Amino acid sequence: MSPAKPLPQYLVQRYHGWRATTFSENHSWYRRLAEEGQRPRAMVISCCDSRVHVTSIFGAEQGEFFIHRNIANLVPPYEPDGNQHGTSAAVEYAVTALRVAHIIVMGHSKCGGVQGCFDMCTGNAPELNEKTSFVGRWMDLLLPGFERLDPAADDASRVSQLELEAVRTSLDNLMSFPFVKDAVEKDRLSLHGLHNDIAEGSLRMLDPKTDEFVAV
Amino acid sequence: MSPAKPLPQYLVQRYHGWRATTFSENHSWYRRLAEEGQRPRAMVISCCDSRVHVTSIFGAEQGEFFIHRNIANLVPPYEPDGNQHGTSAAVEYAVTALRVAHIIVMGHSKCGGVQGCFDMCTGNAPELNEKTSFVGRWMDLLLPGFERLDPAADDASRVSQLELEAVRTSLDNLMSFPFVKDAVEKDRLSLHGLHNDIAEGSLRMLDPKTDEFVAV
Amino acid sequence: MSPAKPLPQYLVQRYHGWRATTFSENHSWYRRLAEEGQRPRAMVISCCDSRVHVTSIFGAEQGEFFIHRNIANLVPPYEPDGNQHGTSAAVEYAVTALRVAHIIVMGHSKCGGVQGCFDMCTGNAPELNEKTSFVGRWMDLLLPGFERLDPAADDASRVSQLELEAVRTSLDNLMSFPFVKDAVEKDRLSLHGLHNDIAEGSLRMLDPKTDEFVAV
Amino acid sequence: MSPAKPLPQYLVQRYHGWRATTFSENHSWYRRLAEEGQRPRAMVISCCDSRVHVTSIFGAEQGEFFIHRNIANLVPPYEPDGNQHGTSAAVEYAVTALRVAHIIVMGHSKCGGVQGCFDMCTGNAPELNEKTSFVGRWMDLLLPGFERLDPAADDASRVSQLELEAVRTSLDNLMSFPFVKDAVEKDRLSLHGLHNDIAEGSLRMLDPKTDEFVAV
Repeated sequence: MSPAKPLPQYLVQRYHGWRATTFSENHSWYRRLAEEGQRPRAMVISCCDSRVHVTSIFGAEQGEFFIHRNIANLVPPYEPDGNQHGTSAAVEYAVTALRVAHIIVMGHSKCGGVQGCFDMCTGNAPELNEKTSFVGRWMDLLLPGFERLDPAADDASRVSQLELEAVRTSLDNLMSFPFVKDAVEKDRLSLHGLHNDIAEGSLRMLDPKTDEFVAV
Repeated sequence: MSPAKPLPQYLVQRYHGWRATTFSENHSWYRRLAEEGQRPRAMVISCCDSRVHVTSIFGAEQGEFFIHRNIANLVPPYEPDGNQHGTSAAVEYAVTALRVAHIIVMGHSKCGGVQGCFDMCTGNAPELNEKTSFVGRWMDLLLPGFERLDPAADDASRVSQLELEAVRTSLDNLMSFPFVKDAVEKDRLSLHGLHNDIAEGSLRMLDPKTDEFVAV
Repeated sequence: MSPAKPLPQYLVQRYHGWRATTFSENHSWYRRLAEEGQRPRAMVISCCDSRVHVTSIFGAEQGEFFIHRNIANLVPPYEPDGNQHGTSAAVEYAVTALRVAHIIVMGHSKCGGVQGCFDMCTGNAPELNEKTSFVGRWMDLLLPGFERLDPAADDASRVSQLELEAVRTSLDNLMSFPFVKDAVEKDRLSLHGLHNDIAEGSLRMLDPKTDEFVAV
Repeated sequence: MSPAKPLPQYLVQRYHGWRATTFSENHSWYRRLAEEGQRPRAMVISCCDSRVHVTSIFGAEQGEFFIHRNIANLVPPYEPDGNQHGTSAAVEYAVTALRVAHIIVMGHSKCGGVQGCFDMCTGNAPELNEKTSFVGRWMDLLLPGFERLDPAADDASRVSQLELEAVRTSLDNLMSFPFVKDAVEKDRLSLHGLHNDIAEGSLRMLDPKTDEFVAV
């Protein structure tokens, strides 16, 4: 027996509303997208956080962004060990099958995953150290980032820095994938790092010249 | 040195437009979301596919859905082995930290990941059998679904069936997580399975009574 | 210059969806309601609380309930002093102009207004005692109800009792309006008291025989 | 003795139907709303009129809108005189306790309260001039709006204009509350004015640039 339940009614109604308006007005494009397949220009890797709407920020239409969302927008290093790597699978599909021209990694302020990593590293979240903690083990990816934090800064500043380190870590790990590195070197793919401040709606990007984040 | 490049200008322009309009008009809500934290009602697990916009279909606002997107909207079984499991981390965070009331798994038509799995299983995509293929190993999650396909059906039907099996598999695997099972049994969490036809904009949902997908 | 801002875009989209579906399917009825005027069978007085949806509970359609919502579903006593009394105006309009056959007062669990009244009366919310506190002065209406609470009960029980007293108080105050009393006595109007438990979705009603609330 | 009567049987039956279906399917969310409290994004001030269903128009779910409904969706000016002001109490609670990000005032066509005000001002409803008329005294709030009507227009147009003036008046009066003004100026709250045509299901909003109502 299935564990599923019916969809809440307010979502059913909104879906019917969408179908009668937005969908109906764009039917020809949706149909063509279905028949010819997607051809997104960019892959976006962002956080699952409900407050981060990358399609809204960039006015993206259907078919424009191939989007992977996970906790803290992290990319693990290349590790072809035959195990399941959902993020690596998404990157591989985007670069080798869809041949996207850009991969954009977007971090954000008030990230619960980054905060959890910080708490874990400072001894304030022992439960995340458990082997069985999926969030804890996932955030281990950011341990090298934590090591790079300014030890003299206060906690709030260090957490903010760690959000930027999450973006840097993902970009660095992306370059460990042979097919990413190859595409970047052949100028078929470019990588971009962004950070979104939720409260102020501001966007900073990683400046390759200085390796610092600057206002877009 | 960072591998990053500056953001393409057309995205910079769209961002500035968004900030001057949509963001500006919703500043008070964004700020409150930043200060008080998110409290999404539901987690949505959908595909990275650029043609699937769940926030558009459901008229969702910022803060409403916690969204994880991976290839073919798959959830692996519970496996607390200390390795990195991005999807499991997202599910754990949604259920135990955010205490969402719903998890919605949404599959879709023309799914490249599902097609790849089908090709791999029918001997038409030997490269996906390689140990080093992240997409292939990720789609291994769907092998039990492939076994359940009607052998008498034609290929196109079987691929469509396999898309539905991806949703069923994710729901079943979700129930293997102790904290999901516990929350479902205590009526604190409900699971939902959907399938979106891209060309027709139609939505079917998994009917718990029949275990079949029916029009919403 | 107007202080207004444009409507958030997600609401604009949902409205267009509603208009293309729910409204469109019921256009003939809406048009008739507009041309012939409303003729609601009942007035409902419930709380502003976002968790209380009386139209959902009773499957009410357009035109069925004349609904007044205020903090803690309170009706003040009859006081024709020439000042502005929004609740009394709503009651007067319902009874004398619309000639509704029922007035239903519906309280609910976890009511912030009732909790505030309790805190004020027990010395835990001095700010509500300020003359300038609109919430405090409004909740003064419930002071007689507070006096009737069982002094031996614990705080949680007393707050729950106070929610029921809010319903009783409103019904009693309704009877102080001459046009309500007259209509009730002529059997042209009946009054009803309900209490909704949000967590369990249960409804209790005031039993006139015992003056206690019993499961519906 | 209580003046209450038992709930009409057709409502009892609908309630049991709702509980077995809609409530049951959303139990987890209702329970969470009960335990954690409401956190609505917006307050809506609309008319008691039975033909105006703001939750339907906007596909709102439980917990989304804090709703105050009174005759003609009016907000009185700030008057902290220690008397009972139900509307002011609702606004105070929404802004200072719930910290909503939006207040939406929604007027509508064929508003009986507005028509009454017009009749009273044009000498056609002397009973509303009585000191004891709660509806009359409540509609006094709209007298400044009546003064702004175009004297050259016909009656039907003037009544329609007066419906829009009711929305403008409420928005202006909202700004007379210090805590509203402060929140608006700090960009923590935004105000919105809408008008719903019942027969056509159309929505107009107050455009801040022109102070006119334009189609949404």
